[in-house]
Amino acid sequence: MERVDTILTGGTVVTMNAEFDLIPDGAVAIRDNQIAAVGTSADIAVRYEADTVVSCAGQYILPGLVNAHTHVPMTLLRGLADDRRLDVWLMGYMMPTEREFVNPEFCRVGTGLACAEMIRGGVTCFADMYYYEADVAAATAAAGLRGVLGQSVLKFPSPDADTYEFSLDYADKFIQEWRNHPLITPAVAPHAVYTTTPEILRECTKLAKKYDVPILIHISETKLEVDNNLEETGMAVVPYVQSVGMLDAKVLAAHCVHINTGEMRLLHDHDTTVAHCPTSNLKLASGIAPVMQMLEHDLIVGIGTDGTASNNDLDMFEEVRLAAILAKTAANDPTALPARQALLMATRLGAEALFMGDVTGSLEPGKLADVITIDADPVHNVPQFSRDPNAVYSRIVYAGKSTDVRHVICNGQWLMRDRELLTINEAELLTAAEDYARRIDRFLAAREEDILSKLLAIGGLQQSESFEVQVKAVLPNAEAIQTLLQHPDVQLLDAKRYRQYDTYFLFDDPAKGRVRYREDDRIDSKGEVESVRTRLTYTLPTKERAFNEAILLSHSRFISEADRPLRFYREYFQPTSERELHKDRRRWHILFQGVLFYLNVDTVLTPHLPQTFIELKSRTWSKSDAETKADRIQDMLKILGIAPEDVIPEEYLEMQPIL
Amino acid sequence: MERVDTILTGGTVVTMNAEFDLIPDGAVAIRDNQIAAVGTSADIAVRYEADTVVSCAGQYILPGLVNAHTHVPMTLLRGLADDRRLDVWLMGYMMPTEREFVNPEFCRVGTGLACAEMIRGGVTCFADMYYYEADVAAATAAAGLRGVLGQSVLKFPSPDADTYEFSLDYADKFIQEWRNHPLITPAVAPHAVYTTTPEILRECTKLAKKYDVPILIHISETKLEVDNNLEETGMAVVPYVQSVGMLDAKVLAAHCVHINTGEMRLLHDHDTTVAHCPTSNLKLASGIAPVMQMLEHDLIVGIGTDGTASNNDLDMFEEVRLAAILAKTAANDPTALPARQALLMATRLGAEALFMGDVTGSLEPGKLADVITIDADPVHNVPQFSRDPNAVYSRIVYAGKSTDVRHVICNGQWLMRDRELLTINEAELLTAAEDYARRIDRFLAAREEDILSKLLAIGGLQQSESFEVQVKAVLPNAEAIQTLLQHPDVQLLDAKRYRQYDTYFLFDDPAKGRVRYREDDRIDSKGEVESVRTRLTYTLPTKERAFNEAILLSHSRFISEADRPLRFYREYFQPTSERELHKDRRRWHILFQGVLFYLNVDTVLTPHLPQTFIELKSRTWSKSDAETKADRIQDMLKILGIAPEDVIPEEYLEMQPIL
Repeated sequence: MERVDTILTGGTVVTMNAEFDLIPDGAVAIRDNQIAAVGTSADIAVRYEADTVVSCAGQYILPGLVNAHTHVPMTLLRGLADDRRLDVWLMGYMMPTEREFVNPEFCRVGTGLACAEMIRGGVTCFADMYYYEADVAAATAAAGLRGVLGQSVLKFPSPDADTYEFSLDYADKFIQEWRNHPLITPAVAPHAVYTTTPEILRECTKLAKKYDVPILIHISETKLEVDNNLEETGMAVVPYVQSVGMLDAKVLAAHCVHINTGEMRLLHDHDTTVAHCPTSNLKLASGIAPVMQMLEHDLIVGIGTDGTASNNDLDMFEEVRLAAILAKTAANDPTALPARQALLMATRLGAEALFMGDVTGSLEPGKLADVITIDADPVHNVPQFSRDPNAVYSRIVYAGKSTDVRHVICNGQWLMRDRELLTINEAELLTAAEDYARRIDRFLAAREEDILSKLLAIGGLQQSESFEVQVKAVLPNAEAIQTLLQHPDVQLLDAKRYRQYDTYFLFDDPAKGRVRYREDDRIDSKGEVESVRTRLTYTLPTKERAFNEAILLSHSRFISEADRPLRFYREYFQPTSERELHKDRRRWHILFQGVLFYLNVDTVLTPHLPQTFIELKSRTWSKSDAETKADRIQDMLKILGIAPEDVIPEEYLEMQPIL
Repeated sequence: MERVDTILTGGTVVTMNAEFDLIPDGAVAIRDNQIAAVGTSADIAVRYEADTVVSCAGQYILPGLVNAHTHVPMTLLRGLADDRRLDVWLMGYMMPTEREFVNPEFCRVGTGLACAEMIRGGVTCFADMYYYEADVAAATAAAGLRGVLGQSVLKFPSPDADTYEFSLDYADKFIQEWRNHPLITPAVAPHAVYTTTPEILRECTKLAKKYDVPILIHISETKLEVDNNLEETGMAVVPYVQSVGMLDAKVLAAHCVHINTGEMRLLHDHDTTVAHCPTSNLKLASGIAPVMQMLEHDLIVGIGTDGTASNNDLDMFEEVRLAAILAKTAANDPTALPARQALLMATRLGAEALFMGDVTGSLEPGKLADVITIDADPVHNVPQFSRDPNAVYSRIVYAGKSTDVRHVICNGQWLMRDRELLTINEAELLTAAEDYARRIDRFLAAREEDILSKLLAIGGLQQSESFEVQVKAVLPNAEAIQTLLQHPDVQLLDAKRYRQYDTYFLFDDPAKGRVRYREDDRIDSKGEVESVRTRLTYTLPTKERAFNEAILLSHSRFISEADRPLRFYREYFQPTSERELHKDRRRWHILFQGVLFYLNVDTVLTPHLPQTFIELKSRTWSKSDAETKADRIQDMLKILGIAPEDVIPEEYLEMQPIL
C-alpha cells in the first residue's frame, strides 16, 4: 500500500484527459500537491491508503476549471454602471472610479472577493490583467488559487503608474519577485493596441522573453478597434502585433471577436492562444467571436468570464454553457461546439491557453492536484441517462450550476469542503466590499452633482474659461447691418454663415448650469452645407455685470470638441430636461475703431421667433478692457439705430416663441 | 389594525408595478390568496397584524417569475440526446421515446419534477404545451403553481391521441373540467403550422373562443418552417394563421424568431402575445429573435425556458440574463434591453403574455399573492451600489442566480420556505425520474443495437426484403459482353450507365449488418449527369447459399429513399467505421431464354481495382426458381467465356485494392 494524503472516492471521475476517460465509480489519490493516481474506487482502495478519504458518491470529480480572462480586483465594481454605452461606461464611470479608488488595498480586497466567488464556482486557475498585480498575486496566493497574473501597461497614466516606463519597471520587479511561486505565474499585460504604442509592445515582448513569461493582451474585441487600427497602421490587429514582434513571445489574446481566417493562421503559426469571453462580448455588444473557425484552425481557445464589470459574475458554468449554445447559432448548426468540447475549453484546453497544459486542466497522475467535485443529481439535473457517455458532459454543461460545486482542492490544498471556504474570510471581505461601495457611491453621486467634473472626466475639454462683453437686440431693418459694415470706423475681416442646431441639457437645480451640444453647419455661398463641427459648451449660471444699462459680462464657459454623438452626452449627463434651439446665423468679424468684435445676425427657427436679432460681442480679459468695449458697443448700437431700451437681456432660450 | 395572514417585512420590495416602485425597507401583507398591501415595513407594521411575520432582511421581495413557454413533462427527457441535428434529435430520439413512454403517469412525474425545479428557481406561473394536459394540470395544482396549460393538437397520431379529432375532444373536456380552478387556466395548443392543418387551426380557434381560453402555438421558430410555409401556402406564418382566423382568439405565440415587422404589426393588431426563448433558440441553432423590434412594436413579450430537452433546465434567471445580453449584440447597442426591462418581461409583461396581467406579475394590492424573495448579497452579488435605482435590477438580472431564491408563495400558499419545498416530495420524484431514465436508456440502447429499428424509426423505408441469385467475375475482354448481348437467346430491354458513390456504415459487431448510402448518378450518352438519386440499403450479414459452386442467394435488404443528407445518417447510426466505394456501372436489362436478368459491367474507381467486373443477377422468390436461374447464369458465363473457377465470391468492399 502506497501512502497518499487524500483520496476522493466513489464519484464519477471526468478526467478530461486525451482519451476523455470517464470512470463511473472512480477515485483520485492526491499526494502533496500532485495527483498520485486516477482509477476505479476499487483499484485505488487496493493500491493506496490515506488519512483523508472522502466519499464523493453522487458527485462528479473534475479537474478545476480554468478562467482564461478576467480582471479580479474589478469585482469591487460589479454592477457599478450597466446597460451603458461602452464609452460612457468606460470613461464616465470605470476610469474615474479607478483613478480615485484603485490602490493596493482595493486590489487585495477585490481579488479576495473574486477568489471567494471563483472557488465557490469551481475555478482553480485564472488569468488576470489589472494594476498593482503584486497585490493581486499576494491575495491570490493567500486564497490558494493558481493565477497567471499580468501587470497592465498603458500609454496613459494609470492608477498604479504615471508613465508606461514605470509600469514596465514595476512589471519587471513583479515578475522577478513572483516567478518561482508554486501558484503564481507573473506576466506582463500591454492592455490593447489602442491603449499602447509599438514601443510599449516591443518593450513588453522583451520583458516576456527575458523571463519566459506570458503576455496577456486584449485583441480585436470590437469592430471599432479593428477599424481604427486599420486606419492608423494599415493593418488588422493581429498582423500589427506580429509586425512589432509580439507574437514571438507566449501570447494569450483575449476576445478575438473580429479576426479573420488569415489572422487565425497567424495566431496558430505563433502558438498564440485565445480567451473567448461570450458573456462580456454579448453584454457590451461587441459581437460573437468565430469560435468554431478558431477551433477548426487548431487554435488553443480557453473560456473567460472577463471582469464582473462586464459580465457581472465569475461563473464559469454559465460561461461554458453560453459558449456552447452561442456557437451553434453562430454556425447555424446545432451540433457545433458539443458539450464535451465546451467543457474541454474550460479545463485542459483552458490550461493550455494559459501555457499550463503540462501541469493542470485534467485529472492525470503527475499533474498538479487541482480537483473539484460537483453534485451530480440536484433537482435541476435529473434524470440522468447513462446510455451515451457524452450525456455526462451534457449534464454538466447544459444544466450544471456553479452552486453545484461541493469540494475544491488546488495544488493539493483544500480550498472548499462541503461548500465551506477554508482559506478565505468571506464575511470580512463582504464588509470591506460594502464599505468600498458606499465610498464609491458617494464619490459618483458628488460627481454627478457636479457637471464640470463629469465634463472633465471624459477629457478633450479646453479648460479655458471665456469672458465676453455682449449685447443683443432686435435688428430694426435689413439695411441697418449694411450701414454698420460700411461705416468708416469698421474694417471687415471675415463673413460666414451657419446653421446652428443646439441641444441644451437642463438640470433640476439651475445652479448646476447647463450643457449645450451644438452642431455648427457652415453654409457656403450656394446655400449648401460646406462643413460641420460639433461642440460642447458648459455654462455656469450667468454671473452678469452691467457696465452700462445694456452691456453684460458673461463668463465661465468651458468648450470642447464634441467628438461623441449626442446620445452619448444625453446618457452621460442624464439631464432633467432638454431644449432645442435651431437658428440661421450670419457672422462677421470686424474691427471697430481697431478693436475685434463679432457681429451675429440670427434668425431663430426652432422655437420660431418672428424677429431677426443682432448680437455684438467681444472677448475680454479685465474690468477696464470690458468697460472700454462696452462703450464701443454703445457706439455701434447708435450706428445701427438701436436705442438702449431695445436691448434684450434674455437668451434666446428664455424668450417666448410665437406659437 | 387590519388582520392579514402573512407579512413579509424588512426586504427591498421590487414591485414591478407601472411606476417601478422600489421600497428599500419594505413589506408585503398577504390575506387569503391576495396581496393586501405593499409599503414600507414601518407603514405595514402600523396598519396590519399577522400570525406569520417573516423578516426578509438582506432579501429582495419580488413578484413570482413567469415562464412563458415550456413543456414540463419533458423534464423527464432532460439531456436525452444533446448536440444533435434537429431532425436526429426529434425523429431519432424524442418522438420514438415519447411514443413509447408518454402516458398520464409520465406526465404527472415530469410535471412534478419541473414544478420542483421551477419553485426552487422562483417561478410561480408558467405556460405549458404537451400531451395528457389534464394530468399536467393535476400535478401543477398539487404543487401549488399557476399554469396556463395547453393540450396539444397535431395532425399526426400523438402519445395521447390517434387522431386530431380525439385531441380536440380531449381538449374540450379538459377545458370544461379545469376552467374554474383557482390555479389552472386550461388552453388548447395546436402545435405549429407544419404539424397541423388549416382545419385543425380553425377547430382550435373555435374551441378557444367557445370557452374564452388562450391558444398556445409555436410560430416561426426556424427559417425552414417559414420557407416551407411560404412554399406551401404562399404566406409567411403569421399571415397564414391570421388567414384561417386564429389570431381572433387570444394567442400566445412561442419563439417568433423569424418574423418581419409586418408580421409584428399583425400580431400587435390582434393582441397576440409572444414568448421569447433565447436559450432554446441558440441551442437548436434556430437563430436570434428580433426582441427589440417586437418591443418597439409594442408587442407583449414574455420570456420562456422552453422544455428541458432543448435548454436543459427551467432556470428563468439564466433566461432573463441571456435575453438581456443577447439583445444587445443583436441590436449592436449595449443599452438595448436594459436589466429592468428584461426583468419586466419575466414578471408583469410575462403575466400579460399569458393573459393574466390583471392577476399576477407585480406586487400590487388586489393582485394574487405570487411572491418570492431572493438573497440580495451572496458573494457573487456584492458589492451593492445604491446610487442608481436601476442597480437593483442590474444585480438581479446580471448576477442573480436561481439558487438565490429563498421563499416562494403562490396564490397565498407557501411553496418554499428557506429553500425547503413544502408541497412536493422531491425525493420520491427523483426516484421515479431515475426509474424512467433507466427504462428509457434500456429502450434506446436496444434500439441502437438494432439497426433495423433505427431505420424503421426514421420512416420512409420500403420494408420489402429482396432475394437475388447473382454471380460476379472478371470480364475477360471488352468483346465478351457484345458476344452475350448479340446471342440469339438474349433479348435486350434496357441499357443505362451510372456513377455510383457508396458509403458503407460498418458496426463493431458484423452480425449487426451494414448500411449503405448510395448516390446513383445516371449518366447520359454525352457522359453528363442526367439525374441523381440517393438510397439507403440495409443488409444483414449475407446468408448465402450456393446452388452450384458459384451462384449465391443473398437476401434481407431493406431499401429506402435517402431523403436526408449523408451527415444525418452518419450521426444517427454512429457507425464504428466507414468505407467508400465509387464505381462506373453500365447496366443492361435482358431476357435470357425469356427470363429477366440484370447485367452490370463495373469499373471500381475508389478503391481502385484494375480489372473490369461483370455481375449477373436476377430476383428470385423460391428455391426452385433460384435453382433454375442459377443454371441459366452458368449458361451465360459460358457464352462470356468465363470458367466457373474465375467466379469471385467476395464483394467489392472485401477485395484488396491495388495501391
